[in-house]
Amino acid sequence: MTAVIAIDVMGGDNAPGPEIEGIWQVAQSDPDLHFRLYGKETLIRESVGRFPGLSDRVDIVHCDQHITPEDKPSYALRRGRDSSMAKALEAVRDGKAQAAISAGNTGALMALSMYVLKRLEGIGRPAIAGILPTTSHPIVMLDLGANAVCDSQNLVEFAVMGQVFARQVLGRDRPRVALLNIGIEEAKGREEIRDAAAELKRMDLPIDFIGFIEAHDITAGRADVVVCDGFTGNVALKTAEGVVKMTTSRLKDAFLSSWVAKLGYLLSKGALSRFRSTLDPSLHNGAMFVGLNGIVVKSHGAATGEGFGTAVRLAAKLVRNRANERIIAEMHPDQSASAAISDGLVAASAVR
Amino acid sequence: MTAVIAIDVMGGDNAPGPEIEGIWQVAQSDPDLHFRLYGKETLIRESVGRFPGLSDRVDIVHCDQHITPEDKPSYALRRGRDSSMAKALEAVRDGKAQAAISAGNTGALMALSMYVLKRLEGIGRPAIAGILPTTSHPIVMLDLGANAVCDSQNLVEFAVMGQVFARQVLGRDRPRVALLNIGIEEAKGREEIRDAAAELKRMDLPIDFIGFIEAHDITAGRADVVVCDGFTGNVALKTAEGVVKMTTSRLKDAFLSSWVAKLGYLLSKGALSRFRSTLDPSLHNGAMFVGLNGIVVKSHGAATGEGFGTAVRLAAKLVRNRANERIIAEMHPDQSASAAISDGLVAASAVR
Repeated sequence: MTAVIAIDVMGGDNAPGPEIEGIWQVAQSDPDLHFRLYGKETLIRESVGRFPGLSDRVDIVHCDQHITPEDKPSYALRRGRDSSMAKALEAVRDGKAQAAISAGNTGALMALSMYVLKRLEGIGRPAIAGILPTTSHPIVMLDLGANAVCDSQNLVEFAVMGQVFARQVLGRDRPRVALLNIGIEEAKGREEIRDAAAELKRMDLPIDFIGFIEAHDITAGRADVVVCDGFTGNVALKTAEGVVKMTTSRLKDAFLSSWVAKLGYLLSKGALSRFRSTLDPSLHNGAMFVGLNGIVVKSHGAATGEGFGTAVRLAAKLVRNRANERIIAEMHPDQSASAAISDGLVAASAVR
Repeated sequence: MTAVIAIDVMGGDNAPGPEIEGIWQVAQSDPDLHFRLYGKETLIRESVGRFPGLSDRVDIVHCDQHITPEDKPSYALRRGRDSSMAKALEAVRDGKAQAAISAGNTGALMALSMYVLKRLEGIGRPAIAGILPTTSHPIVMLDLGANAVCDSQNLVEFAVMGQVFARQVLGRDRPRVALLNIGIEEAKGREEIRDAAAELKRMDLPIDFIGFIEAHDITAGRADVVVCDGFTGNVALKTAEGVVKMTTSRLKDAFLSSWVAKLGYLLSKGALSRFRSTLDPSLHNGAMFVGLNGIVVKSHGAATGEGFGTAVRLAAKLVRNRANERIIAEMHPDQSASAAISDGLVAASAVR
């Protein structure tokens, strides 16, 4: 399926180099994608020129402004409406593209996404969903930081959106969905989590709702979809990042501790580099902003070309699987998605 | 300084073997400690008899009952008052010991501790404080799970208690204290966290209050004391445990992936075992229940003899450093700790 993706190429820490390289990598293997690139035209032309054939696959839309990592969401809303980030989102709103991607600052991207695209019908709060590695298979976790405080209805909506992504992005037929809690008994934890559990039990979703899991079960892969408020999800994600960094740095120290260990390292080098690559963030780059009238993917600011390519592939997958239509259908089981759409309720990019 | 420690030796997964072994290890290196052991007398006598000289260092108090890992806190309060766990806590309350230790179930131990020892004057909610490894030095983090929801005053009290432990247990003169948040700017995160920050800035504590840190900064060692509610702390701790497990299991897979890698493993074995030992939970075993009229230390249920010994040493350190007196003095800077004590406000074990 042909698709057009709008990309703010000015967002990353080393923009636009890694962005353009990632786009080129995906363009080669996926001939049905076309790209609209938003940012400084001269810079973009120079980067695009380095990759043979890429200029035929992109349209460049010059934007004077771009959002910096330091810009607050409020500043982005007041002053950033002509930025490359806002213009990429407008392309989705106006039907010129089916998804937007940016490696720019998360708060600004969420604020502009909500302003430009509006919330999906029936969703109180958009959330940030990410794909995480576990000991067995990758899983979806949300919210990773959009909403510091959530009520039970927010959590239920996150579960509905999360299971759609688990099916469409990770290919799980009947995803195991769990609420993150500090114990697995029914009476444990916070009230909004217990209420959300009761509601999810009542609902008729195509999922295997397994109740509560504790945080050590996230990496054990006990659930395909882990649901929590954005404060908790952000803490869990960043704790995991910190621990991976700590263990790999201690491992390095261990190998440098003696000559014998150094020799051992040389022999194990290939295996260790495969070990590191399973934890490589670029393999799982791309957080999805779910609950908006359009597909928005946030790349890590420090993503390499390969990492940015992962985010582009994710966006293409979400477009082709019509992720938003599915969410609408499951939030409103009484009316089919197509009915909801023809009612004019939805201006979702995915349906254009 | 001579001290008596009351120990519920029936709490661990393999009780009382690891408990008695840990006690013996500490008894050998610390001749001024005496132990009161609570549990099944015949079992304890048999275990104690295996270690030469240990019987002179312990008093055995027979208890028919003990709390199981499955017992709910409410059951422990209703039916567990004659258990070895409750009796060890009563020894602290009655001045027969200066600290209590149990490897039994956390919820039951906290419920019984609050019932038997009562809260420390000026402390709204006791918390669970743990010592965590980082890339540089060990740090204190609290609350690790006692309170699923906290207000700003709870967080402030956790900060006051945490810094006392950082000074007395970890030897930090002027500990860097931080509130865990999802961003470092003043306007970020939850209201109670922002309010606690404002209050900690106003207070005249012997600390370096560094404001907010994000979760990846925990293992980076940016703060000596990390303060958060018990839900967040529990999620962070268990996420970290899960990630350590995942990385070590993937590392093992990497070494088993080829003959060359296996040879490399053999050569690096010593270094790798040192690497694993830095992450060994027994090195950091022992969570402190802070905010009670008495020192209570919770050992991990699966702790080895060595791990249980770490918890015993921690309890002895807290007793000798008069941790609770210091907390009282800093919660009530207007009256000295000794005045608070002579006023009869406090029945703290540490002051007997």
